[in-house]
This record gives sequence, C-alpha cells and structure tokens, in this order.
Amino acid sequence: MKQVTTTLRIETSGPGLTEFTGEVASWVAAQGMDEGLLTLFVRHTSASLLIQENADPDVQRDLQTFFENLAPWDASLYRHTTEGDDDMPAHIRAALTQTSLSIPAVDARLALGTWQGIYLFEHRAPRQLREVVLHLMGN
Amino acid sequence: MKQVTTTLRIETSGPGLTEFTGEVASWVAAQGMDEGLLTLFVRHTSASLLIQENADPDVQRDLQTFFENLAPWDASLYRHTTEGDDDMPAHIRAALTQTSLSIPAVDARLALGTWQGIYLFEHRAPRQLREVVLHLMGN
Amino acid sequence: MKQVTTTLRIETSGPGLTEFTGEVASWVAAQGMDEGLLTLFVRHTSASLLIQENADPDVQRDLQTFFENLAPWDASLYRHTTEGDDDMPAHIRAALTQTSLSIPAVDARLALGTWQGIYLFEHRAPRQLREVVLHLMGN
Repeated sequence: MKQVTTTLRIETSGPGLTEFTGEVASWVAAQGMDEGLLTLFVRHTSASLLIQENADPDVQRDLQTFFENLAPWDASLYRHTTEGDDDMPAHIRAALTQTSLSIPAVDARLALGTWQGIYLFEHRAPRQLREVVLHLMGN
Repeated sequence: MKQVTTTLRIETSGPGLTEFTGEVASWVAAQGMDEGLLTLFVRHTSASLLIQENADPDVQRDLQTFFENLAPWDASLYRHTTEGDDDMPAHIRAALTQTSLSIPAVDARLALGTWQGIYLFEHRAPRQLREVVLHLMGN
Repeated sequence: MKQVTTTLRIETSGPGLTEFTGEVASWVAAQGMDEGLLTLFVRHTSASLLIQENADPDVQRDLQTFFENLAPWDASLYRHTTEGDDDMPAHIRAALTQTSLSIPAVDARLALGTWQGIYLFEHRAPRQLREVVLHLMGN
C-alpha cells in the first residue's frame, strides 16, 4: 500500500461550476495504481466540490440559479458584509455542498458513473485561483 | 494493510429513503478487518447518500417533504426539462446531500451511532436500479 | 502504512458552531505521521460537521441564521414532533451539512487552507455531549 498527494490549481471567473474530471483522472492514471481511494479536498470556504451531471450544460446553469435564489447577494440578509455582497452567500453555498469528496478507484480507473463529472463550485464574484488537494492511497 | 471493493445494487421505486445499513454492515463484517475505513460512493447524479435516524419513520417522511418543497417538481423553475419534471429537482437534491460517505470501522464494527442508519436517497420518479461502490481499507 | 483511531467528546449548549480545529490538529501531530488521510465522523443525526471560515465570527452567526430560516422550529411543518420542536429541524440541518469529512495530511500537517476551521454544528436546543471519531491512516 502506498500513497501520493498533489495540489491542482483551478482558475475561476465568477460563480458557477468548472469541470476538472479530466485533470483528476489523468493524475490518478499516472500513479499506476490498480485499486485505491482518491480524496479531493478544497482549501477554501467560499468555493466547494460537487459531483454532478456533465451531459446537459443546462443542469449546471439550473444548479447555479437554485443556489443564487437560496442564498442571494443581498447585504440586508447578512451581518458579514465587509468582504462584499457575494462573500456571505458564498460561505452558505459552500456549507451546503462539499469540502471533501472520496472516490474509489477500481481496475486503475475512478469508479465514476457514466454521467458523473467532478466540479469546482465557485461562489465568489472576483476572479480566483483555487487549490484542490488530491490524495490517493492504494496499490 | 489491505483493501477490498464491492458494488451493491439497490432497487428503488420513487423518491425517498431506502435503508441499507444491514447489507453494508454484513459485507464489512465478512472482510474480517479489526480496524479500517469504509467509503461509500453512489454512481449517480440524481440519487445520493445520507446517514440519518432510523428510529421514527416520520423523520424520513419529513426529510422527503422538506426536499420536495425546497426543489419542487415544477418545470417553470428550470431550463433542463427534457428528462422529465423530476430530473432537475433530483440533481439539486443530490447536490445538497452526499455522493460519498466515509465511516471508520473500530473493533470490527462500523463506528455508527445508536440511531444512525445508512440510506440511499432516491430523487427520481421512475423505478431505478442504483449502484453504490463500497471500498474498505484496513487490517 | 499504519492507522490509528480516537474519539473526541465535545460539549455543546444549543444550536451553533463549535470550533475544534486545535484538538484535531494536536491529535494528528501527536501521531507522528508525515503523510496521510484524516477522516472525521460524527456519531449523531442531529449534529453535523462543517469546515468554514474561522476569521470573522459573524460568518458563523449568519450561517446559523440561514439554517434557522431554512428549517425553522415550527411544529406545524413536521410530522416528527415527539422529541421537541427542535428535533426535526435538527435532522434536516444535519442532512444538509456533513456527517463525515476527509482531510489529507501533508508534511505532518492537515492540508487546511488559511481560513479553514473544523466545526461541530450543533442543531439541538438542550445541552449535549457529542462524539466525533477520528481515523488517521498514513505513514
């Protein structure tokens, strides 16, 4: 049993989903493990991780709209407003989604379903560079 | 340290929670590990995983009602409607709950609390056959 | 590769976030591993785990307010009311946040971002003693 870690950097420009399944799958394949456990961890509290459908782009737009309505950019709703109208809604949207994800690898491939993509979910308005730590353990 | 993987198939018939704690606990016990880490991963984007109370069935009904109100079957709310009125709300409900779960095993048993059950949370209307990958690592 | 497990007990007095990053980091440091994977698992269905900003305390208050509005203490909304007005909203708030969290450890430290704190999210009104299982695997 061995383990290996890396950090991916993902640039975002405003709220929404950025798929990075390909980068993750490539890195996992390069480690040459037959079987193992992949963990993804986002090092931020105003961006999050999500596994969602990667077929129809409207799914990603509808997800974004849902979270915009649930935790809107409306300073009158929040105490924490010093970092901008978008910051507190970003923390709420991050709290409702994932900071970490675990995906088994079987037969040298991630056990993702046919339509599952791995997404970084950006919740802030300004351009950001986000870090996602990948940890793979197996043999 | 060793690892083992399997896939459970769970049949569902409409939205709601299906408990499968027993199947998971039996499989873990059969691996004969004293200590380890169990990961569950659902291979779908319109069904999810949840650990919740398994005492009063009303808790599961109230959870279902809450998610029905939060992301209703109302095509006027969504762009993605080609797969039916239930599909986009299913993706939203899945995004708000879990795609993966991690449960430590201690003294050859899952470290679940007294009232904790493991559930598949179905969000689609039609009958489905869902796959949950189990990965156990330990010794 | 080795693994080690412990259980932290955290006392709470009403709904809100209790940070315990320090206890977790100390325990991880004491295990003397250079690299590994930490899993946290809360053994309850009316309390949950959350990684969130630990800079401005208003963020934690706004998060609490958001969940109070989303799943209010209003018995008329729920079937499950025998354990008090706060119990069913507690299950819902727990379902929307995390039962388990995974954090890689790199260079003998948790890979948390600068502003990330680890929180127990209490959702019940009465005083509680909560258990969080920590499992660390690595070398």
